[in-house]
Amino acid sequence: MSAFDLPRRLAAEALGTAMLVGTVVGSGIMADRLSDDAAISLIGNTIPTGAILVVLITMLGPVSGAHFNPAVTLVFWLRREVSAAGAAAYVVAQVLGGLGGTVVAHLMFELAPLQASLTVRTGGGQWLAEGIATFGLVAAILAGIRFRAAAVPWLVGLYITAAYWFTASTSFANPAVAIARSVTDTFSGIRPVDLPAFIACEIAGALIATALMGWLLRPAVRQALAE
Amino acid sequence: MSAFDLPRRLAAEALGTAMLVGTVVGSGIMADRLSDDAAISLIGNTIPTGAILVVLITMLGPVSGAHFNPAVTLVFWLRREVSAAGAAAYVVAQVLGGLGGTVVAHLMFELAPLQASLTVRTGGGQWLAEGIATFGLVAAILAGIRFRAAAVPWLVGLYITAAYWFTASTSFANPAVAIARSVTDTFSGIRPVDLPAFIACEIAGALIATALMGWLLRPAVRQALAE
Amino acid sequence: MSAFDLPRRLAAEALGTAMLVGTVVGSGIMADRLSDDAAISLIGNTIPTGAILVVLITMLGPVSGAHFNPAVTLVFWLRREVSAAGAAAYVVAQVLGGLGGTVVAHLMFELAPLQASLTVRTGGGQWLAEGIATFGLVAAILAGIRFRAAAVPWLVGLYITAAYWFTASTSFANPAVAIARSVTDTFSGIRPVDLPAFIACEIAGALIATALMGWLLRPAVRQALAE
Amino acid sequence: MSAFDLPRRLAAEALGTAMLVGTVVGSGIMADRLSDDAAISLIGNTIPTGAILVVLITMLGPVSGAHFNPAVTLVFWLRREVSAAGAAAYVVAQVLGGLGGTVVAHLMFELAPLQASLTVRTGGGQWLAEGIATFGLVAAILAGIRFRAAAVPWLVGLYITAAYWFTASTSFANPAVAIARSVTDTFSGIRPVDLPAFIACEIAGALIATALMGWLLRPAVRQALAE
Repeated sequence: MSAFDLPRRLAAEALGTAMLVGTVVGSGIMADRLSDDAAISLIGNTIPTGAILVVLITMLGPVSGAHFNPAVTLVFWLRREVSAAGAAAYVVAQVLGGLGGTVVAHLMFELAPLQASLTVRTGGGQWLAEGIATFGLVAAILAGIRFRAAAVPWLVGLYITAAYWFTASTSFANPAVAIARSVTDTFSGIRPVDLPAFIACEIAGALIATALMGWLLRPAVRQALAE
Repeated sequence: MSAFDLPRRLAAEALGTAMLVGTVVGSGIMADRLSDDAAISLIGNTIPTGAILVVLITMLGPVSGAHFNPAVTLVFWLRREVSAAGAAAYVVAQVLGGLGGTVVAHLMFELAPLQASLTVRTGGGQWLAEGIATFGLVAAILAGIRFRAAAVPWLVGLYITAAYWFTASTSFANPAVAIARSVTDTFSGIRPVDLPAFIACEIAGALIATALMGWLLRPAVRQALAE
Repeated sequence: MSAFDLPRRLAAEALGTAMLVGTVVGSGIMADRLSDDAAISLIGNTIPTGAILVVLITMLGPVSGAHFNPAVTLVFWLRREVSAAGAAAYVVAQVLGGLGGTVVAHLMFELAPLQASLTVRTGGGQWLAEGIATFGLVAAILAGIRFRAAAVPWLVGLYITAAYWFTASTSFANPAVAIARSVTDTFSGIRPVDLPAFIACEIAGALIATALMGWLLRPAVRQALAE
Repeated sequence: MSAFDLPRRLAAEALGTAMLVGTVVGSGIMADRLSDDAAISLIGNTIPTGAILVVLITMLGPVSGAHFNPAVTLVFWLRREVSAAGAAAYVVAQVLGGLGGTVVAHLMFELAPLQASLTVRTGGGQWLAEGIATFGLVAAILAGIRFRAAAVPWLVGLYITAAYWFTASTSFANPAVAIARSVTDTFSGIRPVDLPAFIACEIAGALIATALMGWLLRPAVRQALAE
């Protein structure tokens, strides 16, 4: 149990998701403006995202667990580490925080606060990519918590750094971030109409990872006791 | 209390700020000379800055606290962790060190020791960006000290790595560094006339972070005792 | 001895090798599509590969040892830390996992599941490079285990990050990954006909490292007792 | 005192310096061949160098101290942590290892084993840069050993990552590496005639750092006892 009360935990989830989305959207705008080479822009989007994840999870993990992601909150609810009401409140805080992050990024770059994204992100390859991206994220978190909890901020930051590149979708892997990215018509945007399939695949990937890691991380000894 | 006397602590603040500014200005010159792509230049400015922050804070933190930043010293003064006289001396050492860093960078690259910058950095988006940048920096430092002091050098290095990209101002977030960057007419410069607004916004961001984190990081138990 | 039974250990080897190859092949496709500058593409291939190695070895090391590489499994068999049967099963899991990684990367990027690579990688310089690359990898692993086991994920990730650039072959250094890269006709591919020489040189490098580090890492005291 | 005998320590110094130079020269060749943008090439030279330093110092530090640098060995000799004869043997091993690293890099890239470099690196700015670069390197090492020995591999790797960019000379900061770079006519080369001034400035920087840090790192308490 966290020593922090629910208002602080929700504030931590909202603040962390806002700073995460602010980084994704803001660095995307900056990188896109500065270069004509899309790979350089993606480097300029990747490095800040990976870096801020290490910072945010270290800062806010002891307060709220630093989910910043409804798919992660779902996993912890399934593992009975958070109540249904707590999980629902977390998700609301994450979505609102994420939207706030987009608004702040837009204001810094002197754009309209909210825009409908026109970036098409759809099709089987993208959907598979979102499933794989979220599968790997949840697997890394669960194994990290099990074996080396202090390393989790690094595992998540480095995992997302890699996943921006190895997935065809640049790895949203987070329904709250996906929603927040649907209201920016910049480098990191996604059409609102493309959201539902992304979110469904993210949840599917999270569920598969929960099941697989539940089996994989149970050592022989504990297994014997369980039989 | 540091085991180091005031002259050593001031020397550490001056040396650290000089090496920080030398890195920001020097790598900016190098990156700008080598590439026509502004995003590549910013990558060549970001990676060295993030890296040297980890080094400098690890090296000099045990001597002086490794503030290198008047906004950070202000926060520690507000928290009664440094005296008013000590804080004032720190700020003088930081500003002088920072100016020294610019001079040394210029001499290495065979430029005039001091130049008036002509780079315009002004407007509401930039000011908001400086406030956000310094807010996040102070929040990361306060949470890091509270939960995982050994990680603070990494948190600051990674935070600034991200903030170079997610803010519209490339995140000065430091009045001493801003002053030192006003006397270089190179990649990282800022017009002297644009300084006051930047510094005001940095201080505002630091104050807001101090207030918010003062509430957020107080766990329920300590809270109960305080009532 | 791992607390995990053989099926879990084999699953960890297959999953880890699949995610490693998926990252190498997937990020290669992404980086190649986004840029016309081959160095930028290699940066976009290097950063994800180094990052995912830190993640995968931290995640799965406690389960299977996180070899993900037949040359590494060979070294541990020579050191009698794994049985012949166990080593053979590991290698099968690694090769199958690696092939699975290529297939998944192709499906994400909407390519045919398997392709014969046409990328020529042959000649004395490349073969020397593969020997050196694997020599360094095994040396880093053996010294890391000896002096600072917790750092091994970082040592491997950083070593491969460097070796992508300092070797003429971009450092395959792994027979299972090499096989998996022979069935993709994308940035990271290698002609099937070029495989045998690569694999032979990788094994030679691993054997030389095992012998040299066996001598180098034996301190004077243990040496005296042994005489 | 190291638990390792002199032959092993010299082998570690030679092997480590060879792998360091092999990385500097090899990644320079690779990065230069792949890109027309000099900043991208420098990124492709910087990341591998920083990464391999973390690996090599972690691997070989417990054996030999992982100097890989005559300027560093000089500092430890001045501090009476190595004998004059030991220091001389270290320097010979470093220089021979460094030359071996250049030869191996050339063979991997199918170049003549040794070449006279034609790259001009001279003038006051460059000399100041070498002095500053080595000053900072030695300061980081001495403070790191004093406050957080386990972090020294990271401090050196990150410091050099920054110094490649903030110095006008791209920070050789190492006489053995400078000598090894005088026999390659590739990206990282230096004309043999430019060596003596570089080496003199590196030694001067190391001596100034030793003196300054000797004062700065002595806390008030120890100071009081010394008076």
